[in-house]
Amino acid sequence: MIKSHLLAPGPTPVPPEVLAAMSLPVIHHRTPQFGEVLAQTQAGLRELFGTKNEVLVLAASGTGAMESAVTNLLSPGDEAVFVNGGKFGERWGRICDRYGVQAHEISVEWGHAVTPGAVAKALDAHPAAKVLYMQASETSTCVLHPVPEIAALTQARGVLLVVDGITAVGVVDVPMDRLGIDVLITGSQKALMLPPGLAVLALSDRAWAATEQATLPRFYFDLKKERQGVRDLSTAWTPAISLINGLRVALDLMRAEGWASVYARHDRLARATRAGVTALGLELLAPESPSPAATAAILPAEVDGKALVRYLRDQMRVTFAGGQEHLKGKIVRIAHLGWVDTFDVVVGLAALELALAHFGRAVDFGAGVGAAEAILREGLPAR
Amino acid sequence: MIKSHLLAPGPTPVPPEVLAAMSLPVIHHRTPQFGEVLAQTQAGLRELFGTKNEVLVLAASGTGAMESAVTNLLSPGDEAVFVNGGKFGERWGRICDRYGVQAHEISVEWGHAVTPGAVAKALDAHPAAKVLYMQASETSTCVLHPVPEIAALTQARGVLLVVDGITAVGVVDVPMDRLGIDVLITGSQKALMLPPGLAVLALSDRAWAATEQATLPRFYFDLKKERQGVRDLSTAWTPAISLINGLRVALDLMRAEGWASVYARHDRLARATRAGVTALGLELLAPESPSPAATAAILPAEVDGKALVRYLRDQMRVTFAGGQEHLKGKIVRIAHLGWVDTFDVVVGLAALELALAHFGRAVDFGAGVGAAEAILREGLPAR
Repeated sequence: MIKSHLLAPGPTPVPPEVLAAMSLPVIHHRTPQFGEVLAQTQAGLRELFGTKNEVLVLAASGTGAMESAVTNLLSPGDEAVFVNGGKFGERWGRICDRYGVQAHEISVEWGHAVTPGAVAKALDAHPAAKVLYMQASETSTCVLHPVPEIAALTQARGVLLVVDGITAVGVVDVPMDRLGIDVLITGSQKALMLPPGLAVLALSDRAWAATEQATLPRFYFDLKKERQGVRDLSTAWTPAISLINGLRVALDLMRAEGWASVYARHDRLARATRAGVTALGLELLAPESPSPAATAAILPAEVDGKALVRYLRDQMRVTFAGGQEHLKGKIVRIAHLGWVDTFDVVVGLAALELALAHFGRAVDFGAGVGAAEAILREGLPAR
Repeated sequence: MIKSHLLAPGPTPVPPEVLAAMSLPVIHHRTPQFGEVLAQTQAGLRELFGTKNEVLVLAASGTGAMESAVTNLLSPGDEAVFVNGGKFGERWGRICDRYGVQAHEISVEWGHAVTPGAVAKALDAHPAAKVLYMQASETSTCVLHPVPEIAALTQARGVLLVVDGITAVGVVDVPMDRLGIDVLITGSQKALMLPPGLAVLALSDRAWAATEQATLPRFYFDLKKERQGVRDLSTAWTPAISLINGLRVALDLMRAEGWASVYARHDRLARATRAGVTALGLELLAPESPSPAATAAILPAEVDGKALVRYLRDQMRVTFAGGQEHLKGKIVRIAHLGWVDTFDVVVGLAALELALAHFGRAVDFGAGVGAAEAILREGLPAR
């Protein structure tokens, strides 16, 4: 194997146009030229987030933006509720704990989506909670949570809704203003088709009002300072210049494809992957509410999942993700978000077929790929 | 479709390491630094060509090197024999004609290899012929000619053997000194994994001796001047500096993989592609002597091959080659040379399956890919 295929749920492949833009000489960030780059990215990001407000671009990973959504909205001793249905849901609780926020957990079995009923019950039980923290797509379990329904609940109760959309923004439509999301977060290394290094988030007017009351300590992640930067076509701190040059081009590529086409592509690739995995006799971890960003397949009990993922990565040069926590060695996660198309799904399933056979499974070669093709062909334009 | 897949028999995909090397600043070519680059490429090229002699790197396409192998070996009125089993074989005759060389044709049906018997017969019929011109791999028909057997014939008769190895060198082992090839030619945009722009060739001692007698006119393609350049760690004319920077890295990649592994990989990919095409019910154009560089599949009569290839290229972004001359619209040529591996074959066959279905064929999705996988798995290392 001489080529690498990155099919993990982040980092994701980077288009050559973006790599080329990031290879341009570094210009200074306190210049009108870079201000123009910021203005262009701002226009694309507002379309992506579906917001009239400023979209903030931090030199940080997604976790930094998650932390900022705690420290900029709350004060010591405040209460919040968080949805914990996987590794990333759990993180909301850990951040809140660290800052002395009383975070009440809605525990969701891994592989399942939270129900609006469970959220309503938790908000009823904790009427003092100011914020609900959740994921749109829980990357560790490949589950899509029902954000629109939950946003209706939080809006009705005057609770702020903070959504980690790190593997959702750019994968499914998450128009924050229309849905009533108060903070929406993503990271560069997912559907934005960039290397890691940027966290991106936006706040509703309600959320901005809350920042005026919030007294938790923050310095680098002072979002008001970041908003002022956007207004001044500048940045609060030294920005990741090359990544932002790449972001401008990545957004251009997505706009050229068309947002609806981007979302339809992800939906098609996800359905094809699920069909392929199922045709190979594997069960889905999240059959009822699967994420269009990645598919988690439960491996046969006799297959050592850790060894399989390692073999795929080191010997076949196809990088999937394995399972986390109690799912370690039991699942494989095949991503299909960002700069991926029909043939990435084909490659992923062919690699899975070959690897399963290599690990002693009886595999009907081509069965997974074939089942996927029957769906992938939907994406073919007319002659 | 958002990604492009180049599966034509040249240009072929270029590895990122090579693209990065070509993106380095252009250094001046009359410097010790560039001399070092030339020395390094020379070492790798001599391994690739299997020769103790200088390997010449011209800023030209392969056709330029073909022309040089006429003008540097022959004089006006000289006789030669050439194997014409396709578009590129025919080119030898056209070059000879242009320079007033009497070139006697060995006509071979497209899709077939020339036989050593036919060569012996032609050389017997034209005892004054000084040179036999042929292809190792005839790209237009995806046929591999039996060079080793023919080299034994030309050696025995004191006839020079000139081999266009443009889609053979780096695909199959063509050790020119050991086989007794007098001129061996390749181009950068094939197994060398570079963009077009370089022609590469080497001459045997017998061929160098012939250049002393040859009076056909030549200036840019004066190979003796090029040889002196190699000896001086310089070049006759301004070299294609960035391409040569890339060549150094491409040769390093091939040496790191190991020459035997490179050839075994091409053989495996070719067998897998043929198995896949056959499983889809298509016939091979060259079943008896197929080239390991590319596979020509005969399309069903009801499929418009030109439209199919165009659709694959423009709508699916998978670039195959169609047929040339009387094979236009009747075949598709799927390449598997250069920077290609297991998953390129998978992509190529999946694309063919989808395209055939799109053009009204009943296709058992996954049948071609599955047949290929059964062979591709040979290439998987043990755990």
